[in-house]
Amino acid sequence: MKPLDFLKRQELIQGKLQSQNIDMLMIPPSINFFYMFKGYLQLSERLICGIIDRNEDSIIIAPSFEKENMKIQTTFDDVITWKEEEDPYIILKQALSYEPKKIALEPSTPFNVYTRLKKQFPSAEFVDGGLFLNELRTIKTEAEVQRMIQAAEHTAEGITKTLDSIKEGQTELEILKLAQKQLSNLSGEMSWFLVQIDENSAVPHGKPSNKKLKKNSVVLIDAGTTCDHYFADITVTSVHGNASEEFLKVYAIVEEANNAALEKSKAGVPAEEVDFAARGVIEKARYGEYFTHRLGHGLGLQVHEEPYIVKGNREPLVKGNVHTDEPGIYIPGKFGIRIEDDVLVQEKSKRLVEFDRYLWK
Amino acid sequence: MKPLDFLKRQELIQGKLQSQNIDMLMIPPSINFFYMFKGYLQLSERLICGIIDRNEDSIIIAPSFEKENMKIQTTFDDVITWKEEEDPYIILKQALSYEPKKIALEPSTPFNVYTRLKKQFPSAEFVDGGLFLNELRTIKTEAEVQRMIQAAEHTAEGITKTLDSIKEGQTELEILKLAQKQLSNLSGEMSWFLVQIDENSAVPHGKPSNKKLKKNSVVLIDAGTTCDHYFADITVTSVHGNASEEFLKVYAIVEEANNAALEKSKAGVPAEEVDFAARGVIEKARYGEYFTHRLGHGLGLQVHEEPYIVKGNREPLVKGNVHTDEPGIYIPGKFGIRIEDDVLVQEKSKRLVEFDRYLWK
Repeated sequence: MKPLDFLKRQELIQGKLQSQNIDMLMIPPSINFFYMFKGYLQLSERLICGIIDRNEDSIIIAPSFEKENMKIQTTFDDVITWKEEEDPYIILKQALSYEPKKIALEPSTPFNVYTRLKKQFPSAEFVDGGLFLNELRTIKTEAEVQRMIQAAEHTAEGITKTLDSIKEGQTELEILKLAQKQLSNLSGEMSWFLVQIDENSAVPHGKPSNKKLKKNSVVLIDAGTTCDHYFADITVTSVHGNASEEFLKVYAIVEEANNAALEKSKAGVPAEEVDFAARGVIEKARYGEYFTHRLGHGLGLQVHEEPYIVKGNREPLVKGNVHTDEPGIYIPGKFGIRIEDDVLVQEKSKRLVEFDRYLWK
Repeated sequence: MKPLDFLKRQELIQGKLQSQNIDMLMIPPSINFFYMFKGYLQLSERLICGIIDRNEDSIIIAPSFEKENMKIQTTFDDVITWKEEEDPYIILKQALSYEPKKIALEPSTPFNVYTRLKKQFPSAEFVDGGLFLNELRTIKTEAEVQRMIQAAEHTAEGITKTLDSIKEGQTELEILKLAQKQLSNLSGEMSWFLVQIDENSAVPHGKPSNKKLKKNSVVLIDAGTTCDHYFADITVTSVHGNASEEFLKVYAIVEEANNAALEKSKAGVPAEEVDFAARGVIEKARYGEYFTHRLGHGLGLQVHEEPYIVKGNREPLVKGNVHTDEPGIYIPGKFGIRIEDDVLVQEKSKRLVEFDRYLWK
């Protein structure tokens, strides 16, 4: 696969800082740190921070015992270090060549990091750097799309193999373990899962339980694995045996909604219209009250990121966006059906992976 | 095991809010959310927030489609909800019975949540709620200690079983997978790992690689699994075969340092003195420059939490603290040795688990 171009991204951010008159963007370990500086680091209580300056080269500050580790894991070949007994925020202030007036913070920066920065830079204005980070991240390059296709293929294969192998009497938690095994064998990376049986499937985001699979149970698996940290997010709803008439009726509506959204999705179309396309189908079939969430969300280094496919988001989709298309109908006490694909926005948008979803008899 | 008493914790926080004249503590999904409200929720872009008020009952706001899920997973039996197309911050403001003047935020609250709260409550003062959350969290109850002993026993057993089973030619990554299997079989919960061979072990926090185990290799495993989300954190450094004279000499120094810290740790002793006790042993043996990090950190729902056992932390340890005791000597290009235990602070502190660490010939 093509390498990701971290330095190019840093340059693009510099341009945005200059145009918005912001001195620097500070990025503690986070998804955005990985996006900018390559290292996939855990946020901890010890300050690590990558800083993109509007004019100067990017710098990083990290604990001194992590110096070699930072040089191996990130794009930096030098590291400003602080010792365990020092206040890293004072060291950071001393390391800067000037007093910044306007600082953008990576949006997930913890409040207690912000308050300590604010103490060192009391007259600086702090703004949310999420906007221009998202401007970059929402437009996937070919190298990123390659990774996401790989992740989507592994996810679809892992889910369908799991559904092919499950047996009556197995619990949601047991099926989750089977899915975990399938996906980690395929991708070798991390994965996440929801497994819901029968009436549990009617609760979006419900946790897996000891509920058992029965003959003709509805079973919903919502899962994703990663490729080089880029996520897939796919939901398959199936039946373990024979599908009831009611299931087939509702399934056809959700499927039509999913297809309608895909048809609507293309560069230039306001995001909310893609939601409306699917919702219209479901409302027309008189199931509108059971479609309780937005149609979808952007996908990439996070399972949920911009653009959100939701009423009120009138921003037009852009070529290179990747978003989920996941209409659902949830009938309390009975079952829920969600069909979720990952869609790449182009002149005519397309699914990252196509696969056979009809696993019942 | 004894149940955790979430409502008691909420009451204790109410008392702290009253004494500090703070109107409310806002807690988005986080470790502290779990600690207060039971639900182990993922932070996402959709606002979920538990709020402890100084006088009124605690409340939660969440997306409307998550209402049932919140009632199942958290301590709340009612939920303030917002619809996908609404601004949850406006709904939150409308739901409050008064205009708060001073709001404490859970310390990991993302900067972009803070900025949106600030927009709704422009005249409110926002302060870091970490201090009084930590005052509670650092003192483990018996129910919490039970969980941590369980996690420590599983971790020690998983690491030693892994070291007993490894073979020449296996890579750090392969050994990590074996350890993953051992620990997840024991605990059924999540685990994390570092596996480092020979000169890699001299880089604290280095990532596992394809470096292979050889005859007489030094191998360091730093790992932890959880029990009901409470962590263990244990490091074993061993030799796959015969230990060299130099290894044995350095090992004995690290071991003496680990024991000296345990001896020093007790209720009432300033945290830094426990670091000094271990560091003194290593410095006396003239390896001071190779002990490049603090002695340890608190442990509980996070792998790193207060109290930090580091120079400069003069706060006395308190009965019920749990901290790691992890001196190390890292000789670049050769090997690193770290011996890490988890210690419960009492009149006389003790390890959560004792086990045989001499796995070489």
